[in-house]
Amino acid sequence: MSAVRNVLFIMCDQLRRDHLSCYGGRVPTPHIDALAARGVVFDHAYVQSGVCGPSRMSYYTGRYVTSHGATWNRVPLSIAEPTLGDYVHEIGRSVALAGKTHVMPDDDGLARFGIAPDSPRGVRLRAGGFVEVDRYDGHLPPGPESGYADWLRARGYAGADPWHEHVIAAADGGRVVSGWQLRNAHLPACVAEAHSETAYMTDVALDWIRAQRDAPWVLHLSYVKPHWPYLAPAPYHAMFRGADTGPIVHGPQDGTADEHPVMRAYRRHDECQSFGREDVARHVRPAYMGLVAQVDAHVGRLMAALEADGRLRDTLVMFTADHGEFLGDRGLGEKELFHDEVVRVPFIVVDPDERADATRGRRDARFVEAVDVVPTILAALGGGEAPYRCEGRSLLPLLRGEAPGAWRDAVYSELDYSFRRARLVLGRRAGECRGTMVRTAEWKYVAWQGFRPQLFDLARDPLELRDLGAAPGMDRVRADLHARLCDWLATRRNRTTMSDAAIEARTDLHRRFGIHIGIW
Amino acid sequence: MSAVRNVLFIMCDQLRRDHLSCYGGRVPTPHIDALAARGVVFDHAYVQSGVCGPSRMSYYTGRYVTSHGATWNRVPLSIAEPTLGDYVHEIGRSVALAGKTHVMPDDDGLARFGIAPDSPRGVRLRAGGFVEVDRYDGHLPPGPESGYADWLRARGYAGADPWHEHVIAAADGGRVVSGWQLRNAHLPACVAEAHSETAYMTDVALDWIRAQRDAPWVLHLSYVKPHWPYLAPAPYHAMFRGADTGPIVHGPQDGTADEHPVMRAYRRHDECQSFGREDVARHVRPAYMGLVAQVDAHVGRLMAALEADGRLRDTLVMFTADHGEFLGDRGLGEKELFHDEVVRVPFIVVDPDERADATRGRRDARFVEAVDVVPTILAALGGGEAPYRCEGRSLLPLLRGEAPGAWRDAVYSELDYSFRRARLVLGRRAGECRGTMVRTAEWKYVAWQGFRPQLFDLARDPLELRDLGAAPGMDRVRADLHARLCDWLATRRNRTTMSDAAIEARTDLHRRFGIHIGIW
Repeated sequence: MSAVRNVLFIMCDQLRRDHLSCYGGRVPTPHIDALAARGVVFDHAYVQSGVCGPSRMSYYTGRYVTSHGATWNRVPLSIAEPTLGDYVHEIGRSVALAGKTHVMPDDDGLARFGIAPDSPRGVRLRAGGFVEVDRYDGHLPPGPESGYADWLRARGYAGADPWHEHVIAAADGGRVVSGWQLRNAHLPACVAEAHSETAYMTDVALDWIRAQRDAPWVLHLSYVKPHWPYLAPAPYHAMFRGADTGPIVHGPQDGTADEHPVMRAYRRHDECQSFGREDVARHVRPAYMGLVAQVDAHVGRLMAALEADGRLRDTLVMFTADHGEFLGDRGLGEKELFHDEVVRVPFIVVDPDERADATRGRRDARFVEAVDVVPTILAALGGGEAPYRCEGRSLLPLLRGEAPGAWRDAVYSELDYSFRRARLVLGRRAGECRGTMVRTAEWKYVAWQGFRPQLFDLARDPLELRDLGAAPGMDRVRADLHARLCDWLATRRNRTTMSDAAIEARTDLHRRFGIHIGIW
Repeated sequence: MSAVRNVLFIMCDQLRRDHLSCYGGRVPTPHIDALAARGVVFDHAYVQSGVCGPSRMSYYTGRYVTSHGATWNRVPLSIAEPTLGDYVHEIGRSVALAGKTHVMPDDDGLARFGIAPDSPRGVRLRAGGFVEVDRYDGHLPPGPESGYADWLRARGYAGADPWHEHVIAAADGGRVVSGWQLRNAHLPACVAEAHSETAYMTDVALDWIRAQRDAPWVLHLSYVKPHWPYLAPAPYHAMFRGADTGPIVHGPQDGTADEHPVMRAYRRHDECQSFGREDVARHVRPAYMGLVAQVDAHVGRLMAALEADGRLRDTLVMFTADHGEFLGDRGLGEKELFHDEVVRVPFIVVDPDERADATRGRRDARFVEAVDVVPTILAALGGGEAPYRCEGRSLLPLLRGEAPGAWRDAVYSELDYSFRRARLVLGRRAGECRGTMVRTAEWKYVAWQGFRPQLFDLARDPLELRDLGAAPGMDRVRADLHARLCDWLATRRNRTTMSDAAIEARTDLHRRFGIHIGIW
């Protein structure tokens, strides 16, 4: 082990923490577990939003959703928001991308500043600061930013849209059926495992890493799985059965009039209508578990190659997810909202620095947030303190057994469901659909615009089965947590053009600049 | 009267509302009163911060301070914040500037986007979107963006720094003394009235307007007075006496241990040390009043010229201030904090459109905020609805006697005293120094980071003499107002790259884009 020279920041899409064996899950994930053994497993890592776009923008900017403003999928990230790639660029390096970012280009911003979209600066800004080796966001046919479609064709997957025709297609007897339909989740995908999305992007990453030869590198490898469509290639499609899928959790208030109105509205979404049926959840979970096992296998392939090349010695590896998913728990499907199935994610960091030797294999119960990734990577690369506008903290002191001063005692997550059918169900306007969560050691509290809050007593009810948001006798708890949320909102880093440090260096110095106020 | 063709947006610096005769004040201001007679006088107009920089950035962006982020003087306005000038530019016109803006250029932003500071775009962005005819921020010698220093020299005011040597200098017997010192406020400035800052900028404005000939125009005429240094040219220096200055207001808690800690800390500032002495307040107020009378005279000169040119018929005139000042009331000097002397400003609008004939000479008690200026000007110029990110509302419906739907029932103002000695007095870090005010019809409530709130019962205590922030029996009132503040904070327009309307047009339409989530 030696100093950090490279960074490999691996993200999975929609990977549920409690499915990994190192987090007590039912999917054997020996290769991810091996990362855990070499690094630190964070047990309380939370994303800033339970949906891809805003969560990733927090990972990439080091800022909460209310600060970066890209509140849901497909909302462009303002080009005024510097990203991990931009910060690393400032210290003379770059962040390569293989896979998904969900960054939507801020073309209005480019136009405002007269930046040609195809200029080097325009290309970088449109990509959220990443240098795109191969960008592929998944859940739609690969676009021109990805080589996947051509790569598939070169391997015999013919057709105008090999993704729809092979990758998310399955053969049901003689009939080709679609992976969009949950009923087909038990079938193998019409793509060989070695040609699947996960395999392809691992190949891209490995080829790119080897092409760097002796140059140090930073790579964001961002898998689009185990996100839907829920269709695994053989043999992963058949690795698990319904009986392997474990309990399905239901709370006493699920779907009743006592349930929170936003939760009830979410039940009207297609994915909740489907996953609300236990037979559907039992039918789909094995495919999801297979996709998780497949990701693990490719993480293993990647790590083996790094080890063979001597790169494990000098590469910081982070492994996490943009959010989890319900998979039928609570009668819900998919993601969003604020239950732990969605907002609490796997988060493992392997720091090759010898100062981290003391923590290898440890579990750390302290709160970690997605916004910590930017400060951590910058610190690991010798970039010093995080930029002022970053709202997260470097995890290096935790990894290296240092005393980081007072650590945070709460995490925050946000949702803007303006884009969702739930808004229509509830008869609300866009802009009236925000939820904000604070989770402390004891409580999870969610404030909703226009509705009562949600409250869970995590000590007595760790599965969050009983919503105390309207329960009598809890007024004081709710008020205290609401006050925490308000204080948090009131202290966001909205003064982005001048740091606190710069202000402290010039406080009360107007006389020095020739301004003499109020002297007799 | 006819349709709006031109806009004249006049701002005074540090002009206290209750000093104008049309607001019941002791300074006869016949020319401003004439505007009032032709237009609508808003009785409850509030600025978004009681200090130049953040207040003006709200006037210029149509956004609250927490949204635009320029929280105090000298904090650059992010170039990602479009301004009045930018919006007007988008409809093919421009906003000229004569006077002060206090916009600090966001040079880091320019560098990020590769915009040369001296390129046309760079010049416009650095100027906050204004086309600078003559930019002069006052309180320091005029820089190269203003012609004032050369203009003075051409009129015989010799020296390297004619501002210090003449404009804010006075002759006390044979000795030249400085206008920085309050003790000299009774003396006439060493500049002729016709060559004073207010006269100069009126000349600049008039020359520019006439140079437009038949072309329509938008001008921001932004006087640096009656802001300090408190030195009026003859005859205005001697127009008022101490006996004319009216009562000085003191609350029972002023300076006592019961007073709010932030208020007490402000008393340690030089200006409060000085203005806390009644003799100083009585000594300075006449000069301030003279400066107000002088502004009025030049407004009269300007309006007479516009009338002679036929421009009153087609020019929308707005007259307001960036904030007021204490002038010794409460034992305080200068500005900041949240009392009405500071945050409630004069606000008069003359709309030449015949649809506004019915409201001429009226007083309107509805709440108006600085953020309303951008939407109002855009609407008047036919620019349609305000851009989504604007947080204010057009006042045209109020001016034209239309029913604007539910109007706002509260106003908001903010302060970041990180830059001030008060922070050091209170032993706080930058970033821990925010105050946020909500003012409803009945109450004014200020939440302070780290301290108890302030609360004033405006029905029983319109002068805000008794702070009920710690008074017993008021918990419910405070909680309700605090909740309003939280709700307000949680609904800021931080999603700047996509509007609510755009979201409403695409809600729940993922299937249309080929994404089929959760179907059986």
